[in-house]
Amino acid sequence: MSTTTSNSSRTAPTEYLKGPDETYAYRRVGGGIRRPLICLQHFTGTLDNWDPAVIDPLASDREVILFDSAGVGRSTGQVPTTVAGMARHALDFLDALCLVSCDVLGFSLGGMVAQQMALDRPSTVHRMILAASAPRGGEDIMHLEKPGLARYLGDPTLKGYAVLQKLFFAPTPSSQAAGGKFVERLGERTEDLDTPSGPAVAAAQIAAFREWEQSTATRFGDLKDIEQPTLVVNGVHDEMIPIANSYRLVENLPNAVLLAYPDSGHGSLFQYHESFTRQVSAFLSSNSPLAPY
Amino acid sequence: MSTTTSNSSRTAPTEYLKGPDETYAYRRVGGGIRRPLICLQHFTGTLDNWDPAVIDPLASDREVILFDSAGVGRSTGQVPTTVAGMARHALDFLDALCLVSCDVLGFSLGGMVAQQMALDRPSTVHRMILAASAPRGGEDIMHLEKPGLARYLGDPTLKGYAVLQKLFFAPTPSSQAAGGKFVERLGERTEDLDTPSGPAVAAAQIAAFREWEQSTATRFGDLKDIEQPTLVVNGVHDEMIPIANSYRLVENLPNAVLLAYPDSGHGSLFQYHESFTRQVSAFLSSNSPLAPY
Repeated sequence: MSTTTSNSSRTAPTEYLKGPDETYAYRRVGGGIRRPLICLQHFTGTLDNWDPAVIDPLASDREVILFDSAGVGRSTGQVPTTVAGMARHALDFLDALCLVSCDVLGFSLGGMVAQQMALDRPSTVHRMILAASAPRGGEDIMHLEKPGLARYLGDPTLKGYAVLQKLFFAPTPSSQAAGGKFVERLGERTEDLDTPSGPAVAAAQIAAFREWEQSTATRFGDLKDIEQPTLVVNGVHDEMIPIANSYRLVENLPNAVLLAYPDSGHGSLFQYHESFTRQVSAFLSSNSPLAPY
Repeated sequence: MSTTTSNSSRTAPTEYLKGPDETYAYRRVGGGIRRPLICLQHFTGTLDNWDPAVIDPLASDREVILFDSAGVGRSTGQVPTTVAGMARHALDFLDALCLVSCDVLGFSLGGMVAQQMALDRPSTVHRMILAASAPRGGEDIMHLEKPGLARYLGDPTLKGYAVLQKLFFAPTPSSQAAGGKFVERLGERTEDLDTPSGPAVAAAQIAAFREWEQSTATRFGDLKDIEQPTLVVNGVHDEMIPIANSYRLVENLPNAVLLAYPDSGHGSLFQYHESFTRQVSAFLSSNSPLAPY
């Protein structure tokens, strides 16, 4: 395990770690005495998609570790077509880091991977934050063919991160303004950039969403086995993974708190980064076995 | 306005204030430089039903004012049969106190009164906390005839506050244990007790719930006019006013955050009093015009 670190995700160097099957690209930000926080990324997102306004404050008193799953960015291998496959890569990566216990921030797809990790190896996951995510068997998960999403994805005038401003933020002046600032912040990293995701990454991850929409025999029944304190976060106008999925998470996870934000969509954590990082820091700092903090 | 105060709701003396139509019973707890917090009580609740574990921490850096609406406890007059009528009494009371602006904590029925106050006289309400409440046009509001509630209300073995332990807390050992502690805390006040509510109070308040269930022409449309930063709180297993009502509040209020608690019901604020008072203090201390804190 390297000791290279940085106080900002804008400048943290990309490092590489060999696991049993693949070599994973990752970055380490900040440091401190607290348990490390592993961040699991959204659909087609790479290391470069983490907002420094979210990562850097969280890294002020802990190490935050950003990670590309297999086949994403500069990690080797194929993108799995199931969330379970992605969870195995995340656990392989943590094993290679010799991390036996960590906190996990999973955003969107990353939140599904976090749930699966907690089910597959509970001892590794201490506390979880599930932002704009969904339970297995959830509804209307990442249907990019919906008119409300397709109009942006098919718009050739939206270059680079501009499509994220439309997709992650509500169609109000205030939310779109926050989206503009988010895009600016992502642009502040200019060197050592990750390889953008192509259609093959997107296709495999969409297949994983479709598989995740399949319910177990007892709908949401697997959530009862996730005992880790969990903070569920979402914006009330999320078009990509509607907030009803966050309602089902908090209703069925035995130990979860829901924080829902107004005037915001899939990227509420970026829009309200000051509130989000304050709440997450308080949640992660709690010594209680219960989620309320 | 009297200057009598106490640092605990267990011992705060009951005072009386003459309004234009009625004389209101009230108690003042704590003090400090912050804006006063007015607390509006639940169905049939009196001044004695406020949990000291919630009121006293909030009173550590502000004055908290507990208030009996007309016809409740030792306040004179008839209980209105509409939430609007109750809101008028609350505003009359604040006028008599010469309070031009305050924060409001409304629990259950009290949260409906708080919403109506914010609509009727926005300048008076600075920030609101709506705990276990519902919007106008909400669903399944206080239907005491439901088997899940009627079995406790019709149980002659449940004496005094014991019925609240069943009604306000989830049917799990952990939530019921928290309910037992809540009942113990209510019992710590032994002198200068309020007059318990009888059937006439209950009947009028039930009529107000039925009227509140009637939607406006555009369902939840009136919520768009409530611009105050609002914190909505509920337990995910609330049988009295199901949490779906809190979902509709945060989806339709333009400036509201939702905090939902696990393993708890209508009284989640009492079950998680440490978290609740910490969150409410942070929310009320924010200088932002936005609800996220």
